[in-house]
Amino acid sequence: MLRIAIDAMGGDFGPQPIMEGLISALRHNTTFTAIAVGDEKELKPLIPPYLIDRIEILHTTDVISMTDSATDALKRKESTIFKAIELVKEGKADAVVSAGHSGASMSLATLRIGRIKGVSRPAIATLMPTSENQNTLVLDVGANVDCDAKNLFEFAIMGQVYAQDVLQLDEPLVGLLSNGEEESKGNEITKEAFTMLSKIPNFAGNVEGSDVFKGTVDVVVCDGFIGNILLKTAEGVADTIGKIIKKDLKRSLISIAGAVLMRKVFKNLKVRVDYAEYGGAPLLGVKAPVIIAHGKSNNKAIQNAIYQAINAASSNLDSDIEERLKLYAIEK
Amino acid sequence: MLRIAIDAMGGDFGPQPIMEGLISALRHNTTFTAIAVGDEKELKPLIPPYLIDRIEILHTTDVISMTDSATDALKRKESTIFKAIELVKEGKADAVVSAGHSGASMSLATLRIGRIKGVSRPAIATLMPTSENQNTLVLDVGANVDCDAKNLFEFAIMGQVYAQDVLQLDEPLVGLLSNGEEESKGNEITKEAFTMLSKIPNFAGNVEGSDVFKGTVDVVVCDGFIGNILLKTAEGVADTIGKIIKKDLKRSLISIAGAVLMRKVFKNLKVRVDYAEYGGAPLLGVKAPVIIAHGKSNNKAIQNAIYQAINAASSNLDSDIEERLKLYAIEK
Repeated sequence: MLRIAIDAMGGDFGPQPIMEGLISALRHNTTFTAIAVGDEKELKPLIPPYLIDRIEILHTTDVISMTDSATDALKRKESTIFKAIELVKEGKADAVVSAGHSGASMSLATLRIGRIKGVSRPAIATLMPTSENQNTLVLDVGANVDCDAKNLFEFAIMGQVYAQDVLQLDEPLVGLLSNGEEESKGNEITKEAFTMLSKIPNFAGNVEGSDVFKGTVDVVVCDGFIGNILLKTAEGVADTIGKIIKKDLKRSLISIAGAVLMRKVFKNLKVRVDYAEYGGAPLLGVKAPVIIAHGKSNNKAIQNAIYQAINAASSNLDSDIEERLKLYAIEK
Repeated sequence: MLRIAIDAMGGDFGPQPIMEGLISALRHNTTFTAIAVGDEKELKPLIPPYLIDRIEILHTTDVISMTDSATDALKRKESTIFKAIELVKEGKADAVVSAGHSGASMSLATLRIGRIKGVSRPAIATLMPTSENQNTLVLDVGANVDCDAKNLFEFAIMGQVYAQDVLQLDEPLVGLLSNGEEESKGNEITKEAFTMLSKIPNFAGNVEGSDVFKGTVDVVVCDGFIGNILLKTAEGVADTIGKIIKKDLKRSLISIAGAVLMRKVFKNLKVRVDYAEYGGAPLLGVKAPVIIAHGKSNNKAIQNAIYQAINAASSNLDSDIEERLKLYAIEK
C-alpha cells in the first residue's frame, strides 16, 4: 500500500481545498493511504469518520508563507513542508505533494531527499494542453534559470523517461525549444544541446513555441527562464482572448442565446487550458516523487496532483532515469 | 513628399497582394509616392491609370526566395530587396517595406544602410495585442539570438523612442521580460541589464510573459531567441483556443444561433490577434525606416506596413535614438 505525504497547510487557501482533494482521491482510489502534515486541530474536523483509518495526521503548526525565502525554509525544521519531505527521506512515505512555497519545496526536496545519480539539476515539468486532446510535457518551467547544454540534455532524458513510465507513452518524441525548426536555428547553448541530443532515440530536433500547443512532440525541453515565460505567455493569451470574447458577447444583440452557448464552450475550454486541471508539476531528478501543486490549487487540482504522485510512485521512474543517464554517460 | 521603396516581388504570394496594398495606401494617403521594385511586365498591369504618376517601377527580375541564405542575398545585387534597400542608401527613397526574406532584409539594411551611431545591433520590434484596446511593443523578436546586457539596454532605449516618436505615446513605460516581477528574478544577463536600465526614466522593472497581453507596460524587452518563442507561443495558444471553440460549437445543439454569433466574435478576435493587421515589424537601429512584413502578408497588412514606414519616416526616430543613446553613453 502506497503512502503519500501531503503538506496540508501550504496552499494559498489553507487546509480546506487540500483536505477535500485528498478525501476525493482516497474515495476514488483505494490503493493508498495518506499522511497529512499540519495542525491537528484544523485538520481533524475535515476528515470524515470512514476515512479516519487511511489518513494519519503528523501534527505541526509552522507554515512557510509565499513571502518567506526558500533558504529560510531550510532552517525551519518544524514547518509542514520540511516535515512532509522528511517523511519521504526517512522512507515513511513514498511520495510528497505540496501546494506551498514552490522554491522551498524544490530546495528541500533536492537537499533532503537528494538527486538521482547522474542528474546535475532537478527540473520542474508541466503538462500543456493541445487542440488534439493530448498534452505536451514541458521542462524546465522554473527550477533552473541559467542552464548549460548538459542540463538541457538531462532534462530531455528525464522528460522522456517520465513520459514513458508515468504518462505511459510508447517511444515519446522529444523536441528542443528554439527560434525555428531548422537545425541551424538556436542560441549558443541550444545548438550545443542539439548536438548532444542527436545521439538519443526519438529526438525530433528543434521545435517552436507553437509546437507546444500543436502536440508535434510529447516532450519539449528548455531552460527554466524560458519555460516560465512560455507558461506565463500562454496564460496571458488565453486570458486575453477570454476577455475579448466576453466583451464582444456583451455588445452582441443575440447575447442571450450566446450566453447559454458560451457557458458550455467556456467550461470545456477551461478544462483544457486551466493548468489546475492537470494537478501539479512533478519535480524530476530527485530520488522520490515530489509533486509541486499551484498555490491556488482547488480540490480538483490537489486530487489530480495526488494521482500524479501515485502514478510516479508506482513506476520505476527514478531507477529508469538513473539507468538512462548512465547509458549516455558511458557513450560520451 | 515622402518616397517609399517597396520590394514588390518578395512575398510568398507574389506581387498581387503587395501592389494591392500599395494602391490602397496611395488612395487613402496622398502624402507620398512609391517606387515599386520588380518585374515591369508583371507590375505594370496591376497599376490603375490614375496612380501611374505616383508609382515608379524600378525594373529587376531576380527575387531572393525564402530558401536562399541571407549571406547569398548580399551578393545578388540585382535582386528586388537589394535594389529597394539601395534606393534608401542612395537617398532616392525615405523608407523601405519588404515582405521578402526577412534575414536578407535585415542583413542588407544593416550593412548597406548602416547602423545608427551607438547601436551595437538593430532589433526587430512588433506590436502585440492586449485586451485593453492598446498594444505592447516587443523587441527583439528575431534579429539577435544571443544578446548581452548592453544589447538589451539599447533595445529598451530604441523601443522607448519608437513608442514616443512613432506610436505617439507620452512617457512610454519599458519592462524587462523575466521569470517574475521581483527585482531578484532573472537570468545572469537580464539581471545585469536590470541594473543598467535602472538609470533610465520610466523603467518599470521586470515583467512576465502575461504582462505583454495585459498591457502593463508599453515596451517589453527581451533577446531575439525568447522574443521568437513568445511570438510563436502566443500564435499557438490563439490557434489552439480557436480550434477548441470550433470543435465545441459543432457539437453544440444550438450551433445555428452560435454560428451567427461566433462569426462576429471571431472576426473581432482575428483583428486583435492576427499580427498581419499590424502590418510589418520595424527594424530599429538602422539609419532609415525599414519595415519587415510577414511573407504571408495580405494587401491589408502591406497597406499597414506602408503606413508604418510613412509614420517612421515623418518622425525624428533615427536622430532621437542616436541622441538618447549618446546621453547614457556619457553617463556610464
